[in-house]
Amino acid sequence: MSDTPNTPLLDRVHTPADLKQFNDRELSQVADELRAETISAVSETGGHLGAGLGVVELTVALHAVFDTPKDRLIWDVSHQCYPHKILTGRRDRIRTLRQKDGLSGFTKRSESPYDPFGAAHSSTSISAALGFAVARDLGGAPEHGIGDAIAVIGDGSMSAGMAFEALNNAGHLKKRMIVILNDNEMSIAPPVGAMSSYLSRLYAGAPFQELKAAAKGAVSLLPPPFQEGARRAKDMLKHMTVGGTLFEELGFSYLGPIDGHDMDQLLAVLRTVKDRATGPILIHAITKKGKGYRPAEQAIDKGHATAKFDVVTGKQTKAPSNAPSYTKVFADALLQEAAGDDKIVAVTAAMPDGTGLNLFAERYPSRCFDVGIAEQHGVTFCAGLAAGGMKPFCAMYSTFLQRGYDQVVHDVAIQRLPVRFAIDRAGLVGADGATHAGSFDIAYLANLPGFVVMAAADEAELKHMVATAVAHDEGPIAFRFPRGEGVGVEMPEKGEPLEIGKGRMIQDGAGVAILSFGTRLQEVQQACENLAAKGITPTIADARFAKPLDRDMILKLAADHDALITIEEGAVGGFGSHVAQLLADEGVFDNGLKFRSMVLPDIFIDQASPADMYAVAGMNADDIEAKVLEVLGVAQLPDRKLK
Amino acid sequence: MSDTPNTPLLDRVHTPADLKQFNDRELSQVADELRAETISAVSETGGHLGAGLGVVELTVALHAVFDTPKDRLIWDVSHQCYPHKILTGRRDRIRTLRQKDGLSGFTKRSESPYDPFGAAHSSTSISAALGFAVARDLGGAPEHGIGDAIAVIGDGSMSAGMAFEALNNAGHLKKRMIVILNDNEMSIAPPVGAMSSYLSRLYAGAPFQELKAAAKGAVSLLPPPFQEGARRAKDMLKHMTVGGTLFEELGFSYLGPIDGHDMDQLLAVLRTVKDRATGPILIHAITKKGKGYRPAEQAIDKGHATAKFDVVTGKQTKAPSNAPSYTKVFADALLQEAAGDDKIVAVTAAMPDGTGLNLFAERYPSRCFDVGIAEQHGVTFCAGLAAGGMKPFCAMYSTFLQRGYDQVVHDVAIQRLPVRFAIDRAGLVGADGATHAGSFDIAYLANLPGFVVMAAADEAELKHMVATAVAHDEGPIAFRFPRGEGVGVEMPEKGEPLEIGKGRMIQDGAGVAILSFGTRLQEVQQACENLAAKGITPTIADARFAKPLDRDMILKLAADHDALITIEEGAVGGFGSHVAQLLADEGVFDNGLKFRSMVLPDIFIDQASPADMYAVAGMNADDIEAKVLEVLGVAQLPDRKLK
Repeated sequence: MSDTPNTPLLDRVHTPADLKQFNDRELSQVADELRAETISAVSETGGHLGAGLGVVELTVALHAVFDTPKDRLIWDVSHQCYPHKILTGRRDRIRTLRQKDGLSGFTKRSESPYDPFGAAHSSTSISAALGFAVARDLGGAPEHGIGDAIAVIGDGSMSAGMAFEALNNAGHLKKRMIVILNDNEMSIAPPVGAMSSYLSRLYAGAPFQELKAAAKGAVSLLPPPFQEGARRAKDMLKHMTVGGTLFEELGFSYLGPIDGHDMDQLLAVLRTVKDRATGPILIHAITKKGKGYRPAEQAIDKGHATAKFDVVTGKQTKAPSNAPSYTKVFADALLQEAAGDDKIVAVTAAMPDGTGLNLFAERYPSRCFDVGIAEQHGVTFCAGLAAGGMKPFCAMYSTFLQRGYDQVVHDVAIQRLPVRFAIDRAGLVGADGATHAGSFDIAYLANLPGFVVMAAADEAELKHMVATAVAHDEGPIAFRFPRGEGVGVEMPEKGEPLEIGKGRMIQDGAGVAILSFGTRLQEVQQACENLAAKGITPTIADARFAKPLDRDMILKLAADHDALITIEEGAVGGFGSHVAQLLADEGVFDNGLKFRSMVLPDIFIDQASPADMYAVAGMNADDIEAKVLEVLGVAQLPDRKLK
Repeated sequence: MSDTPNTPLLDRVHTPADLKQFNDRELSQVADELRAETISAVSETGGHLGAGLGVVELTVALHAVFDTPKDRLIWDVSHQCYPHKILTGRRDRIRTLRQKDGLSGFTKRSESPYDPFGAAHSSTSISAALGFAVARDLGGAPEHGIGDAIAVIGDGSMSAGMAFEALNNAGHLKKRMIVILNDNEMSIAPPVGAMSSYLSRLYAGAPFQELKAAAKGAVSLLPPPFQEGARRAKDMLKHMTVGGTLFEELGFSYLGPIDGHDMDQLLAVLRTVKDRATGPILIHAITKKGKGYRPAEQAIDKGHATAKFDVVTGKQTKAPSNAPSYTKVFADALLQEAAGDDKIVAVTAAMPDGTGLNLFAERYPSRCFDVGIAEQHGVTFCAGLAAGGMKPFCAMYSTFLQRGYDQVVHDVAIQRLPVRFAIDRAGLVGADGATHAGSFDIAYLANLPGFVVMAAADEAELKHMVATAVAHDEGPIAFRFPRGEGVGVEMPEKGEPLEIGKGRMIQDGAGVAILSFGTRLQEVQQACENLAAKGITPTIADARFAKPLDRDMILKLAADHDALITIEEGAVGGFGSHVAQLLADEGVFDNGLKFRSMVLPDIFIDQASPADMYAVAGMNADDIEAKVLEVLGVAQLPDRKLK
């Protein structure tokens, strides 16, 4: 899809130590080559392009100045880690990014010693770096030692409370550690929040321009003797700090803002910091997401996550879709409901596009709230809105809602406030891998008293569940749906509220009943088509609700069949466990029932296509078919375990 | 225990509207009477004394100036809400605080319209207030309307990231709302963190003294015509803001610091704010925890939570203890282990006393970290420490660990980092009620791949589990234990690491096997003593591990008995669900097994003694006995449901 770029200097870099052979001017060239290589690789694999392009110079400068992996370099969220992977011995596999058996799209401890701390959710890097800094000072990891602890964190990630907590603690402990604030005014969506405005004011001030001039002066001296460069950098530093910043109030030395694409500035500042830092220090670097690749720079999301693309034109090649995505169905359904009910408001935590709420924000700007990367606040803000008489839809990915779990329990469930949780990316999600899997929400929500927990079996069901959530004012309600396209069912004109706690029968059969919760229903139906050829006709039901359970339907299914199999896109402890609890309480097991609960297995599953991931999980149609045959004792497919 | 104080003015206050009849000097007297009444009440009930005494004047002033309940007044954490309850129609029940069927120790929506948003975990108030402010501007609650949204939050709570997230969002949205920072330099423990130092610097500055003088001037005019007072207050305000504070950077107007015990200052400032505020405003009030009651002021924890006490002497009357608390056993065991292993470090989130880590901090100050009210950061900080070769013990209450759930999943579990979670206050906790119950940790941890999850059946087991956690370096491990005293078993000299995933047999019996996870074991044993009198001898086993399960033991128990009953101090989805999953997978249900899983019921249980709460839950000895009789079909105790 692209010609491999010409990279004579980069070709000589096998580990970061190889960067030490280059002078500063050559390092700039390495950065240029690294940018070209990154663009080329992502054009073949798809993935997070803009973030990496924004930190190419920073990546080269950090690895040139510091001594990784002894110095621990931690990339926050790590969308931006592709250039880092190229420099740290993984260039030969960089074109397998985000693919099955390929490199992870994120940093990953098990992948490389140059990834001391994996990430994929935001705002963890300062906490982790502080952990390394403290461990260093206490003699941790004595075999190789720990050098500097460096966190690179974006301005978007800085809006998360967790980052503040870490700054607050680090400023108090006063350990030597380095935080690089990579300020590109853009996490995924344009930034929101007062912190973002504050950062803009910081670099709208004087020092940046002055520094730029000073750095330009330094450049004219190149190639300088190193001592000379260091001396100049120290002088520069004296004039760089603006004083009295929020970060200084929290106990950090503040340096900046500096131009994060100016290799001379970066090298000078990093060398000086390495040489002189004592306590915690924050370097404020201004960068441009998508830098150096026009199609990425010009994209609204600065090329955040892209499909494969043509390097010359920037045109992305996406597979044609057969049905609207669940996200789109949710967003459209909510818009339709909101037109008739002005109490409906929507809240996202920095994911307006990912959740589809960008459409809502356009149509109803005063009723849509992007709270920043702030799930804790977002959930409780919704609780406050509900207590104030509104109908808040809290739209979050399953994996990110984990960030607001205590608020779900304490502020929503205990107070029985009617917050509506629209849980996107439920189940396995594909290229983003284990860190983004929505595996636990059924379990962690369905055991909360008073919660209603639904899962949509297809996109029409999703539309009805949005209507159900609008209508349900008695307490909290959640509906989950997966990443990706719907199944192409006919869409109803309008969502109709479902009866709370009632499932639906899909197919009447005999012997075995399969009770599905969520979109595995299609696989169940496929399995049953295959079984029909063998003369086996299971009963199929769609539970719709993990809570409250459709007690009557479940007990009848159990009574009328020898075997009952539940299936859900979630870990043990969720739907199947609630069904088991009901059956046990009712004494259904006393006289025998072939009960099986198909759940995600007890492993974190690496990235692949969702279908491949569900194959690993043993939850596709052929797995379901095998499970039916097993409980019937009819036949065992050979070598299931080896498949 | 105390003479009821003489409170002539307070006696005339039945709702906050009654405060409008008093002039400012009389309001000061109301405050004095309210303080006396609060001390008197808590001397009879025990509870959070110091926090309430610190906000007596603030409580009176807020209710005098604003119009609750139309104005929404939200007390953060709400330890400090007793004076508020006295003023808002609950004085007649104030001596039932924290008791069964009495007033909650926290604000609670279901208790009073004057509690618009309940709290018990910290740092939620700004998010909730913002929710009300937005709902107001969007026409929420049209029947009664919403006036001002006011959050009162302590400086300790301000260290939580959630508060920062809310400030960041509120500063961006620019809605009129009022945050009162109640700065007493003391949440529960002395404050830690850079934010705390920052606040100290703020009020070490000039304006406080000047303001005090200005306010004194205002006092000399009393009783002033209201218009005159208001005019003076406005003049005062002009000179009060210091400018450039961290809060202003985040988009708030900052007022203060003011003396939170000076009624004149409070009334003047609040009236002016009420009159003139447009956007978000933060009032920084300096108060003294325990103010006005010498024993509370002088206590190290400023009388945070107290037993019943003698008002004159301040002497607390605690029941004599028969055994050390689980908390103390954990703390001592960890100290003992730490003496021989300098890689052991300990982390608490602002609960050094509650978790027992105060002892660790004294002995090993460089190895103990109080991160502030910052569970998210605390968990990931531990992950960083573990990645750096240390053995971190993350000591948190079950209910507060919910705050760090995503970090447990994303930073600890996925990376298989050996963080040790010491989970205190597991199960039902007594006087603190539903908000502090540790009901969900078994479920939310045991479905994480690679986790080891233990529960101690008694204090000796806890000591062994601490040793087990020290020895387990392969991945994350958690052990849970309840609030309160141990059972008085003989303590081993030294903890011995348990074999991972192995339970222990307690009693051999026949017919029914009871598999206990945690401290319900004592109730199980009591039930079995009662059953012995009826000629029934169940087998008893202690699972020790919810993950990994002792598969061999469980399958053998199932094979050798007609019935298997599991019991745990947690909600459905946890231990019993994992056992059910194993039994289902192994086909044990196929031919019949009387399986029952005793878990916390699907309700939030109000405060009472733990024993009373477990009676509500149906998990005491007589409930277990009844369950055994039921599965055996021997006899049914009459009226179980009505007990």
